[in-house]
Amino acid sequence: MASKVHKAVPHLMTLADLTVPQIQATLRHSNRLKKFSEPWLLPHGALAKKHASKLKLPSQSLFNKTIALLFSKRSTRTRLAAETSATLLGGRALFLGRDDIQLGVNESPRDTARVIGGMCQGIFARVGEHEEIEELARHSPVPVLNALSSLWHPTQILADLLTLHEHAYLFEENGVAPPPDGIAGTPVFQELRPLTVAYVGDAANVLHDMLVTYPRLGHKLRVASPPQYRAPAEVWRRVEELGCDKDIWWGEDPKEAVKGADVVVTDTWISMGQEAEKAERLKAFEGYQVTEEMCRLGGANPNWKFMHCLPRKPHEVDDEVFYGPRSLVFPEADNRKWTIMALFDNLFGRWTHESYTKPQKSAEKDSN
Amino acid sequence: MASKVHKAVPHLMTLADLTVPQIQATLRHSNRLKKFSEPWLLPHGALAKKHASKLKLPSQSLFNKTIALLFSKRSTRTRLAAETSATLLGGRALFLGRDDIQLGVNESPRDTARVIGGMCQGIFARVGEHEEIEELARHSPVPVLNALSSLWHPTQILADLLTLHEHAYLFEENGVAPPPDGIAGTPVFQELRPLTVAYVGDAANVLHDMLVTYPRLGHKLRVASPPQYRAPAEVWRRVEELGCDKDIWWGEDPKEAVKGADVVVTDTWISMGQEAEKAERLKAFEGYQVTEEMCRLGGANPNWKFMHCLPRKPHEVDDEVFYGPRSLVFPEADNRKWTIMALFDNLFGRWTHESYTKPQKSAEKDSN
Amino acid sequence: MASKVHKAVPHLMTLADLTVPQIQATLRHSNRLKKFSEPWLLPHGALAKKHASKLKLPSQSLFNKTIALLFSKRSTRTRLAAETSATLLGGRALFLGRDDIQLGVNESPRDTARVIGGMCQGIFARVGEHEEIEELARHSPVPVLNALSSLWHPTQILADLLTLHEHAYLFEENGVAPPPDGIAGTPVFQELRPLTVAYVGDAANVLHDMLVTYPRLGHKLRVASPPQYRAPAEVWRRVEELGCDKDIWWGEDPKEAVKGADVVVTDTWISMGQEAEKAERLKAFEGYQVTEEMCRLGGANPNWKFMHCLPRKPHEVDDEVFYGPRSLVFPEADNRKWTIMALFDNLFGRWTHESYTKPQKSAEKDSN
Repeated sequence: MASKVHKAVPHLMTLADLTVPQIQATLRHSNRLKKFSEPWLLPHGALAKKHASKLKLPSQSLFNKTIALLFSKRSTRTRLAAETSATLLGGRALFLGRDDIQLGVNESPRDTARVIGGMCQGIFARVGEHEEIEELARHSPVPVLNALSSLWHPTQILADLLTLHEHAYLFEENGVAPPPDGIAGTPVFQELRPLTVAYVGDAANVLHDMLVTYPRLGHKLRVASPPQYRAPAEVWRRVEELGCDKDIWWGEDPKEAVKGADVVVTDTWISMGQEAEKAERLKAFEGYQVTEEMCRLGGANPNWKFMHCLPRKPHEVDDEVFYGPRSLVFPEADNRKWTIMALFDNLFGRWTHESYTKPQKSAEKDSN
Repeated sequence: MASKVHKAVPHLMTLADLTVPQIQATLRHSNRLKKFSEPWLLPHGALAKKHASKLKLPSQSLFNKTIALLFSKRSTRTRLAAETSATLLGGRALFLGRDDIQLGVNESPRDTARVIGGMCQGIFARVGEHEEIEELARHSPVPVLNALSSLWHPTQILADLLTLHEHAYLFEENGVAPPPDGIAGTPVFQELRPLTVAYVGDAANVLHDMLVTYPRLGHKLRVASPPQYRAPAEVWRRVEELGCDKDIWWGEDPKEAVKGADVVVTDTWISMGQEAEKAERLKAFEGYQVTEEMCRLGGANPNWKFMHCLPRKPHEVDDEVFYGPRSLVFPEADNRKWTIMALFDNLFGRWTHESYTKPQKSAEKDSN
Repeated sequence: MASKVHKAVPHLMTLADLTVPQIQATLRHSNRLKKFSEPWLLPHGALAKKHASKLKLPSQSLFNKTIALLFSKRSTRTRLAAETSATLLGGRALFLGRDDIQLGVNESPRDTARVIGGMCQGIFARVGEHEEIEELARHSPVPVLNALSSLWHPTQILADLLTLHEHAYLFEENGVAPPPDGIAGTPVFQELRPLTVAYVGDAANVLHDMLVTYPRLGHKLRVASPPQYRAPAEVWRRVEELGCDKDIWWGEDPKEAVKGADVVVTDTWISMGQEAEKAERLKAFEGYQVTEEMCRLGGANPNWKFMHCLPRKPHEVDDEVFYGPRSLVFPEADNRKWTIMALFDNLFGRWTHESYTKPQKSAEKDSN
């Protein structure tokens, strides 16, 4: 396929692969796809007749196409987001789990990439070691998008950013939510003031993509992680290349990390495959639980908000924070869908990292 | 989503949750959806051209929508019915098995319900303990439909009732099948005279939904089950609340149970998860096998018919009955599809338990 | 369903079940479906506007229909081909793996066939013993297509033949590729001169379908296989019935087999389920690796090409051949999709083995 359209195959391994305008365009595109899609998801008949005639389909760039979900690890959110948004784009996602394909066991990753790429129009891969997805991308005739690897988690950070933009008023003095948009009342995408974002927990793929992204968007990062869990050299190289390191504070004390924080983020302490290290890890992360008290003592912005990529264990964050008014975790989970939909549209549907960026009025026309 | 449409989320755990008019409307709706759908399922080209122009799509209330099938236990019939009927309604069913999601293991049922309900527009759940599905329904922002729990099996009883209504003539003196309806020759939905229905076997979820339903529809129930397998208190409470108990005879002798029976029903003696009790259960159910002789000795209506929810083991019913002219088991299995389709349309597509009940002519118009 | 259309249910177990005109029509139909489908698979926007108006959908004979993929063994290529081509035909493929249905364990194959056939419009089955799929076909009310059994692999041989027809110029003196066809540049289907095809390796299902097919199409077969691995009597009976045996040379020496070969084919030496025999098999196949040297020494046509159904292990064929200019393995893998699509259209969509064979112009009209 690649040769037929005389175009290099685009892939996306980490947000470090995208420019700032590309990231911003992807976020705006996500919000727009959400606004066009949500009315279709309301109960049939819930819309007044005058609205029905205004319903427009979102981009149908995946019509007749199939995207392979190559998941060697289980993933509820990522999978549901991919399958439901492929449907909205007119296409299909085909889930292939560990029992369906064992990458490298019966066949080389090279052959697998070529074969899947000859049948499907994109590969959304959740592998183990990051090198595996790089190998797929080297040989695939269709775009490969990283659904999670040992090093990076680009789709999570896009969802986090979309959530912050849709709640930007929360970070303004006396901010008020703007009236929601579209037939189904979708939150409006707003500009975001420079934030201080604290990450308290395990330095893993979620944090890595934050490191190469937030500073470029004008936000400050403060990280607390036990000394034994530091970002690997390959990640740090990308951080420095992009000039992100100067806006990152890194230490071991969670309370120091949340100082001045507008947003506090954490993630699981025990990732899949680390179950054996459970006791050791629980000990290493003692004192890292995100609570009202910890953030008050640390001097977070009294108005701080909370994010978590889920699934959540109570030792990472207590119920008061997790289910309380500071928590953005469920809108954040919902936004996995719309940001993945934007990437599917751009990358698999259109073979570009350049999102559609025309003003909204034209966008509506385009979506017909 | 729920908040956006200002409507309480409807769920369905058991037919005890529905009124008699709601049950009847659902059955009629199932037959109507079947009539509209079956012509599409014929071999392409099998229809004369004059018919092709009369083809109408069934309700497309799931267009662009995805229904999560949360199945912690395997289920061929229920799953196939759900996946194929979601397709006919213009939507998608997304199967999540035990290997995809382990409810409560990596994440609380509360969080799982909220996350799935943020991505999908309905949850069709086959869990273990009934309490699990109640917990899902408590926290889901979208409707939850019980695909089978330890206590209830509402979709099976709807399929049984539809089958009886489509074979009502069999229970009339010298009854003759009415000419089939629609392009593909779908059986006509007819009124049913008051029947005596005998259930011979394990008192489990299938029987429980019969107990809260058949008496309300004017039928008598006669149950034979070994004394150690009785309906739990929670079920019996619903039976009494609905005034069903006065039309239920319950004993231990299968022959006494089938006395005067127009229909004899049984189910597996060993449900999933009870394999360890196999020997004990086989002993408890000695003499319970449904055969010509047992029903003759017991004094069943000489014209009795047989139903079974499948899969079937020969110890429950012999080949002569199961594959013979009394058996309604395969139309009954096929009707899993059309009754589940009606529930998907009503509950997930329209968020209502009130099926569409206008006369047929308008129904055809509506389906355009 | 079967009874409703008064037509015997067609099945396909092996290419021995098809006549030569049926095979040829299926191959031409595959190429035509490919030409209509490929433009839809290009990146959205890659087509000039003048092309967009010429886009036609391929046959939509599976619209609203669901095909059950009953796979008791894993199969990447066959599964992807089935799922993606059902989508292009407007329908759905529903994958049921070993964990979803264990044929014969909880339910007899007879009951399973009847139940699945009552919900789905076709069964594409990859079972173990060939007798299992015969049993399914005996009881299924809808067509059953063999996706691979212990005896036969009809869909693989169709893909191989399509690949040869699309590369026919390679076997002509100074042959030049004809200009590709259609909007996306699909290879043209050409007549093929009589070839000598060598099969070097394990005498299993792939070879069996070659034995009953190639000679009938005018090609000579030369087989080298260790003496302990010969075709079973049932296969050989079909070979003789069809008069194929006179054009088959069978021996033990790979070098003798490739004498004059235009095409060299091999397959895995260790099929699924034979892992325990690995050491023994590796020994039996010593000297069977397909290499430049082996074919030169054996006296293959200097212009020989290579095919393999994949997945490939290096002991069967070295990298020089496998990734080199002789190799047709990846177009061959891609063609699994288009030949399976043709079978799905004919068998499941139209209930016929007679492919559409009108000249291309009418075909285009038909696809509207």
